[in-house]
Amino acid sequence: MRMVDIIQKKKDGNALTKEEINFFINGYTNGEIPDYQASSFTMAVCFNGMNAQETAWLTEAMAFSGDTVDLSVIEGKKVDKHSTGGVGDKTTLVITPIVAACGVPIAKLSGRGLGHTGGTVDKLESISGLKTAFTTDEFLNIVRKTGICVAGQSADIAPADKKLYALRDVTATVRSMPLIASSIMSKKIAAGSDAIVLDVKTGSGAFMSDLDDAVALAKEMVAIGENVGRTTVALVTNMNMPLGHAIGNSLEIIEAVEVLKGGGDDDLKQVCFALAANMLFVAGKGDMEYCEKLAENAVKSGEALKKLEEMVQAQGGDPACISNNELFPQAEYSYEIKAELSGWISFMDTVAIGEAAAVLGAGRSKKDDVIDHSAGIILKAKTGCYVEQGSVLAVLKTNRKESVNDAERRFLNALKFTDFQPEKEKLIFAHISSNETKYF
Amino acid sequence: MRMVDIIQKKKDGNALTKEEINFFINGYTNGEIPDYQASSFTMAVCFNGMNAQETAWLTEAMAFSGDTVDLSVIEGKKVDKHSTGGVGDKTTLVITPIVAACGVPIAKLSGRGLGHTGGTVDKLESISGLKTAFTTDEFLNIVRKTGICVAGQSADIAPADKKLYALRDVTATVRSMPLIASSIMSKKIAAGSDAIVLDVKTGSGAFMSDLDDAVALAKEMVAIGENVGRTTVALVTNMNMPLGHAIGNSLEIIEAVEVLKGGGDDDLKQVCFALAANMLFVAGKGDMEYCEKLAENAVKSGEALKKLEEMVQAQGGDPACISNNELFPQAEYSYEIKAELSGWISFMDTVAIGEAAAVLGAGRSKKDDVIDHSAGIILKAKTGCYVEQGSVLAVLKTNRKESVNDAERRFLNALKFTDFQPEKEKLIFAHISSNETKYF
Repeated sequence: MRMVDIIQKKKDGNALTKEEINFFINGYTNGEIPDYQASSFTMAVCFNGMNAQETAWLTEAMAFSGDTVDLSVIEGKKVDKHSTGGVGDKTTLVITPIVAACGVPIAKLSGRGLGHTGGTVDKLESISGLKTAFTTDEFLNIVRKTGICVAGQSADIAPADKKLYALRDVTATVRSMPLIASSIMSKKIAAGSDAIVLDVKTGSGAFMSDLDDAVALAKEMVAIGENVGRTTVALVTNMNMPLGHAIGNSLEIIEAVEVLKGGGDDDLKQVCFALAANMLFVAGKGDMEYCEKLAENAVKSGEALKKLEEMVQAQGGDPACISNNELFPQAEYSYEIKAELSGWISFMDTVAIGEAAAVLGAGRSKKDDVIDHSAGIILKAKTGCYVEQGSVLAVLKTNRKESVNDAERRFLNALKFTDFQPEKEKLIFAHISSNETKYF
Repeated sequence: MRMVDIIQKKKDGNALTKEEINFFINGYTNGEIPDYQASSFTMAVCFNGMNAQETAWLTEAMAFSGDTVDLSVIEGKKVDKHSTGGVGDKTTLVITPIVAACGVPIAKLSGRGLGHTGGTVDKLESISGLKTAFTTDEFLNIVRKTGICVAGQSADIAPADKKLYALRDVTATVRSMPLIASSIMSKKIAAGSDAIVLDVKTGSGAFMSDLDDAVALAKEMVAIGENVGRTTVALVTNMNMPLGHAIGNSLEIIEAVEVLKGGGDDDLKQVCFALAANMLFVAGKGDMEYCEKLAENAVKSGEALKKLEEMVQAQGGDPACISNNELFPQAEYSYEIKAELSGWISFMDTVAIGEAAAVLGAGRSKKDDVIDHSAGIILKAKTGCYVEQGSVLAVLKTNRKESVNDAERRFLNALKFTDFQPEKEKLIFAHISSNETKYF
């Protein structure tokens, strides 16, 4: 078998065999197939696509290209969750304690933030002392003991995907439905859970700005998951504005805790409860109505908040942070952005708002940039709100005084105003399972 | 400027600027742009193409990526010729002496054979002592003194093309009209002649098996040549069977000499005289009718043959070879392939026949394979001939006795027979100049 023939076959629009896909992924991972053949292959895939079967084989090949996590030592049906990324998306911090409090073990590997999006691991690390790097044994022991652990992804989970993604990033081959879907799902499959709930974001702050594309990606990922025997469902949710009001690492932990305490932002709550209920559903806890009640009760009873505290303690963090916001690192500068005119906010360029937060120190533009856990933005108004001239739109928090002007300019440029009340957007657009796509 | 953005732009189907194309070619030549970006770019070009202006810019960038030959020290209009390659294509050996004998200087750089096709440099080297590697000064001195020199292409002619072609070869991105056209024309432009005659082969032995593709390639190359101020015309000629009856290096020299002596294969003569007349025409020697006469007279008078002998001598070869075939290396084994049944030959898979000759030692499968100048095939029957069962179809010549069975099998598999006389195919399909495409 020769890689050049495999590239030619895909260039000619033909479907590849399992053997050809394995040959590519194995050869690329061990360095026998050079980058220049992999990149011309991925470009051919961008144009000619892959069918569902090819995509499933590609995903499996990448999932098994390195270490896989064996969760069979943990009793019960383990459920994972993945978000395609957005701004202010702190749902993992809310829903994993809820689901764990309902008795479903959570053994979750999470990522770091890059560009305009945040990452759960960065957010958790704003809790004093909290660790996210564990050996497999430590990780499994924490899950066994407390029913939940959220750790960083080790280098050897799906190394083929890691290598291929880095290549796609510099060869303009990121945007391809089968490549995106297989990249995400390979890591989820290697991470070992029995069922997966996907949160596919769509809108101005999402990778998939178009709803149809987001639904297509969700369907593709659900098909892959089911193909390899993992129960998989997806919600397609709104990322046309940041989720909740806090953007930035410790700020998002604080907002997540508010929800676990029974308060918090209504939009954030709605998305979190929908995701949590779906996780409980795929774990086999009952029908959807019952699972929704279970999730609500876990918050009302305080069990979910207690579970988060247990997790923080088990991961070496200071659980006192959860009840006392002042124990988080505090930004030196706080700056109010004020409305330049009165009107209804009709649009938020959410990527630009994420980038404004990154400029303040909350994110990375390069992989090795250092995060400032205290930095970020607290939104005081979002799309659909009426604001008076001079009222506060947002509060910037940073230790980089020199970044404030840049962040303010980015933030103001990201907003559009109208003189009439815009229609309220849906928060959840669709629910996708293996046998049904339900639009709301 | 970033290469990833240039790739994205081409992936999105947009036309590139001259600056972007230069950025790519300069960066790729000097190693700043890695292979993996170049290959994903060429794959995007395979799908989205390049317009005439982009292709001209790409050609120019590659032509000027290394040394260029300055022929201005030689008086008169210098004319180059290029064939896209075929089997038994010895036209260069016939027409360059004809054209030089008519007073048009020939300063030609030629290539070596690879795969099923032969190369003029290999063929010339079957003449004892003949050199094809010269310094620029030596090369120009031979042209000045004898009016003709056919040399090998130095490593530093269009190095960008050399590097890119090698990459395309292993990344399934060879087949792309603008990439093929710019690759050929960049070398011709760097080689310095004022006018160019292209012989674009089509058929079962050609890179472009389809006539429409061959015409499109011819048009693209003519447009490039004219765009950079070189008078360029193209003939699209038949490669549905080998040209002439000899395949193999010294065997083809011998057949070429037959034509220069006034004899030889009719098909070969027709193609050679058409190409030679076109070269004389673009050199400004007169109208086409007059140029055809000029070419014929150069052969009739013996001037063309004399010119070949002068060239051989000037390049250090033994001119006695031209009049005495026995001075060429002789193959140890000679084997007749006989017809298994009676009938009309209706088709020759010409690539397969070229490969059969290569198996005997006449060609290379890898760049560093050694050529056996005595090996090859003498065809005794071609498409359109009626053969009796047991009559000789071809004579194999080789020093590799063990290769005979393989070559015979390849040869026999390459033929198709019918029980009726097939229609005679055209030899020359089209003539393409900047203002007209004429079909015959």
